[in-house]
Amino acid sequence: MGRWEPNARQRLAEAALDLFAERGYDQTTVAEIAERAGLTKRTFFRYFADKREVLFGGQEELARLFSEGIAATPADATPFEAVGAALDAVAAIFTGERLAQARARQAVVAANSELLERELLKRAKMVQAMHDALAAHGISEPTARVAAELGCLAFGTTFFRWVDAGNRREFGALAAEALDELRTATAALG
Amino acid sequence: MGRWEPNARQRLAEAALDLFAERGYDQTTVAEIAERAGLTKRTFFRYFADKREVLFGGQEELARLFSEGIAATPADATPFEAVGAALDAVAAIFTGERLAQARARQAVVAANSELLERELLKRAKMVQAMHDALAAHGISEPTARVAAELGCLAFGTTFFRWVDAGNRREFGALAAEALDELRTATAALG
Repeated sequence: MGRWEPNARQRLAEAALDLFAERGYDQTTVAEIAERAGLTKRTFFRYFADKREVLFGGQEELARLFSEGIAATPADATPFEAVGAALDAVAAIFTGERLAQARARQAVVAANSELLERELLKRAKMVQAMHDALAAHGISEPTARVAAELGCLAFGTTFFRWVDAGNRREFGALAAEALDELRTATAALG
Repeated sequence: MGRWEPNARQRLAEAALDLFAERGYDQTTVAEIAERAGLTKRTFFRYFADKREVLFGGQEELARLFSEGIAATPADATPFEAVGAALDAVAAIFTGERLAQARARQAVVAANSELLERELLKRAKMVQAMHDALAAHGISEPTARVAAELGCLAFGTTFFRWVDAGNRREFGALAAEALDELRTATAALG
């Protein structure tokens, strides 16, 4: 088997999600994932540190996109505008073609308490990444921290609505709506 | 050794924190904690499910106090007023006598990445508890969720300032100040 397989990462992720759905996350081995994808275990470990990273590896990409989106906003953007730019940046990867895979991933994580705990930790790191980008953009404390918490809250709400079985709307439109709802909510805090 | 030892819980907690500071968390056993407190392992397990609960067992009490504080506010209290009442309720247990133990606990948690991860998970559960109390008090979504996130952010900030070596101020005054800072920050989000 050659060193460079076309779309190996994507094939491995699809094989893993299929197997997790069929057999359960705990009952699936890396060897089985590689075999289903027609690749070797060695190729698997070239793309993912372990089985769990198939589910969580994408969160580093999200943190990077949040940061790039914020860095690209004008210097006089408000904190909410900067957060909106972060959400727009990740909307670029949550396209219609990714929807089935995102739904499958969400179903696996939701069914396993250990994975749900891991998701909470990853979320905390995402808040930190968004915070650091906002602070680097000149937004002071504690505003940067509040904006990052609300930005990740908007992201989570958007993601859940996007993967919902009945949803037909695009990620970007859902994200703008979720952020608007939080803007309204902050005005109602008293 | 009798079944009911006076102040057993407090004696075990103090012995545990002393040993964690002397030897490190990982190098300390439950048997050693019990021995240092002059109690049995069996007595230890009457109060704590495991070694980790010496550090995190108090978080259920915090969640309960948050909920009681919110439930006791007038029906027309704003979300920020309800959160303020939650912080006032926990201020009652963070008295001067508890400060040395809180500082020791914080030093142990901060030095151990596994414990820091556990802290993040407990924080997420605290946000959920505060959210549920706010929702039960009639505060609608997503305002209840935003208020709970900000309330736990204010709590975290207050706790860090309170245990800081140079601090001489009381928990309640620090909490009111932290919440005021977040109120100002939300007005600056744009």
